[in-house]
Amino acid sequence: MAVYTEVSDDELALFIGGYDVGALLSYKGIAEGVENTNYLLHTEKGPFFLTLYEKRVAPADLPFFLGLMEHLARARLTPTPVRDRQGRLLRELAGKPAALVTFLEGVWLRRPQPEHCRALGRAMAELHIAGQGFRLRRANALGVGGWRPLYARFQSRADEIAPGLAATIELELDRLESSWPRDLPQGIVHADLFPDNVLFLGNRLSGLIDFYFACIDALSYDIAVTLNAWCFEADHAFNIDKGRALLAGYQSVRPLIAAEREAMPLLARGAALRFLLTRAYDWLHTSSDALVSRKDPAEFVARLAFHRGIRSADQYGLEESSR
Amino acid sequence: MAVYTEVSDDELALFIGGYDVGALLSYKGIAEGVENTNYLLHTEKGPFFLTLYEKRVAPADLPFFLGLMEHLARARLTPTPVRDRQGRLLRELAGKPAALVTFLEGVWLRRPQPEHCRALGRAMAELHIAGQGFRLRRANALGVGGWRPLYARFQSRADEIAPGLAATIELELDRLESSWPRDLPQGIVHADLFPDNVLFLGNRLSGLIDFYFACIDALSYDIAVTLNAWCFEADHAFNIDKGRALLAGYQSVRPLIAAEREAMPLLARGAALRFLLTRAYDWLHTSSDALVSRKDPAEFVARLAFHRGIRSADQYGLEESSR
Repeated sequence: MAVYTEVSDDELALFIGGYDVGALLSYKGIAEGVENTNYLLHTEKGPFFLTLYEKRVAPADLPFFLGLMEHLARARLTPTPVRDRQGRLLRELAGKPAALVTFLEGVWLRRPQPEHCRALGRAMAELHIAGQGFRLRRANALGVGGWRPLYARFQSRADEIAPGLAATIELELDRLESSWPRDLPQGIVHADLFPDNVLFLGNRLSGLIDFYFACIDALSYDIAVTLNAWCFEADHAFNIDKGRALLAGYQSVRPLIAAEREAMPLLARGAALRFLLTRAYDWLHTSSDALVSRKDPAEFVARLAFHRGIRSADQYGLEESSR
Repeated sequence: MAVYTEVSDDELALFIGGYDVGALLSYKGIAEGVENTNYLLHTEKGPFFLTLYEKRVAPADLPFFLGLMEHLARARLTPTPVRDRQGRLLRELAGKPAALVTFLEGVWLRRPQPEHCRALGRAMAELHIAGQGFRLRRANALGVGGWRPLYARFQSRADEIAPGLAATIELELDRLESSWPRDLPQGIVHADLFPDNVLFLGNRLSGLIDFYFACIDALSYDIAVTLNAWCFEADHAFNIDKGRALLAGYQSVRPLIAAEREAMPLLARGAALRFLLTRAYDWLHTSSDALVSRKDPAEFVARLAFHRGIRSADQYGLEESSR
């Protein structure tokens, strides 16, 4: 939770004057988002979300992220970046790259139920299909090739998180690097579809947000991320009702091919390792009293162990496509 | 800037169901306010402000604060606390006392100009008049009687802030305690009308917020606080144009009596000392990397010195009432 960059009323009024959104009525710094500074604005034309991109987002990636959101907004899946009077999506404010985006009403669910997993599965498949028409490319910096270099940055301290963790990670890296599937259907993936990035109005999914990890990768890897992010309980147990609903929702829009089904246990292991690595790194490099709250890597240690015991995707609740 | 208490979607939806404000559309934790946790809510009936009262606010004072805001809202000076279906202003959420208040559009001015000081003066006088009809009482815990006990809590470390500060404070305490005026017109004062508690839409003052220091005290003490809070420049110089505008704005609604005019230099010294003391205490008791940003006490050392050189209120720009 943080506002890294304070914006004064004068400079914000000037900035907003560049858009056709009417006068500024109010703005409040939002205490969420560990990557960027976010303000919720009210203008005469309604609520908007203003993001100032801080150092963890590469400026070179911003045209991809904003262009993608604009592309997907046509499919009504995401908030819409607003172009200024000169047609620009990306501007500068308080010395930082900045973008104005429509505000999407909705609440993220702390305790999603199977019906919400089903809605997420559908929306993710719609995202994958809508993404096919987007022309910009971005590689997955946190894909299989990025895991070992990331691990190398905290290798010597890995066992501070859990005894034996270094050995576990090394074993997984060897296994995943040698057997990672390369021929699965590719396309735009969100790559970070955790519950806090999926908004609901009542039980209706209102949209997907926070595309700052989006990239080109195996579409089924996105599913593997959501199996990790949505289908485990607080005690680390996998909830197969949620898995079944998520996968059925997805397949009601885009049925998986055989290679994707077979790869799912491996993809899920990879996704668990990816979040284990970033959380472990952040855990070791963030002081406990910092502005940003640390997310515990331990839950992904448990998930990784679970996935290593999975032999086939039906253990996640994957059924033959009913379409 | 902080959200001290996280509220889950389930408990918030339940809480909001107790009010006639429609369904919850979204809520965002606000990164401002050092005393409480604040959320900006959108519901089907519009935007609202939700406050969870943290330990720095005494629960016993909440009926006073909320009742006062409701009273003043009738004079269109403040946001309106919302009563739930059972008529309650104060409820409980996530284990904390909590209140829902209408959201007041407006922006606080980082660099107020004389015209804004004039509008503030008028609104403050209207507040003082409207407050006369309010029946609850609350003493000023940070009035003259509270300064020495507060000082005693950091006395031994005062010179860490500025060499010689301890001697300055002790001299001031002796002088102010012995000559503090007791017979000035009393009533409801805001007692913390800094620019961040006064909202503007363009050049129009839209309202006053944050009444959590409000109490019964000399009305002219509130003016003395605002002379300190609004009329000094970044280089600590007093801006008499701002002082003149503030005082003229005030007197256009409520002319000062002779005793109030005469007391103004002493009241301004007291107000400077009051903020010097709380900021110095916070400065010494807040780590530099804490969630809450520390406000520098040094500017009030400079203001105190300025006020000690003032011989009469016309040096603040106080003119004979033109009413």
